[in-house]
Amino acid sequence: MRSQKSSGLFWMKQVIVVNASLGMGVGKTAAQVAHASTGSYGRSRQDFPEDVDTWKREGQKKIVVKGRDAEHLRELRRNAEIMGLPCYLVEDAGLTQLPPGTVSALAIGPAPDDDVDVLTGDLKLL
Amino acid sequence: MRSQKSSGLFWMKQVIVVNASLGMGVGKTAAQVAHASTGSYGRSRQDFPEDVDTWKREGQKKIVVKGRDAEHLRELRRNAEIMGLPCYLVEDAGLTQLPPGTVSALAIGPAPDDDVDVLTGDLKLL
Repeated sequence: MRSQKSSGLFWMKQVIVVNASLGMGVGKTAAQVAHASTGSYGRSRQDFPEDVDTWKREGQKKIVVKGRDAEHLRELRRNAEIMGLPCYLVEDAGLTQLPPGTVSALAIGPAPDDDVDVLTGDLKLL
Repeated sequence: MRSQKSSGLFWMKQVIVVNASLGMGVGKTAAQVAHASTGSYGRSRQDFPEDVDTWKREGQKKIVVKGRDAEHLRELRRNAEIMGLPCYLVEDAGLTQLPPGTVSALAIGPAPDDDVDVLTGDLKLL
């Protein structure tokens, strides 16, 4: 379960997991990460406004890590949802480079560091 | 000046200009782009909510391009402000890799394609 303590006691972060199996270029990767980041930010702002305020005060920490493939990202999303953490999975619109529906990136948080680390703490930085 | 026609007549996009002189890695680049994207999105939503709605309906087009250096990004920001376009310049908090205050990325829009192209149409994709 998501940590129940007051959010003021935590460091907050947002972690974005990129589908490394796609071999996207830097610009495409950055655009997909931005899409995921914005989407999860919107959900966190709605459901956990205090966490978002804390995260902004702390400098909006964002960490980008590698995920194996689409199934890995979907599994992380399921687990984030079970934990009650805000998240957003990007399925690319297919306007450039990728086929429509391609799972490209998953953002989790902003949420307490320790909660996000349960899911992504063992993933390598991109 | 910013286009005055009804926003419903336009394609919208957000362009994010990365400071290529920093030689940031992929993950760092993506995080800075996400920061810029979120910041400019917030401003556009506040000042041009119809443009943001249109942009979302169209699939949130985001394009990531190369800027020369910090001065180039600052100049683009000045010109975006003169044109009345929403924009957001990231000066990194310096938590990782970069010295505090480093200008890393500039997002412009979501705003009408043609308006953004005046500023960034000649820049290369990252």
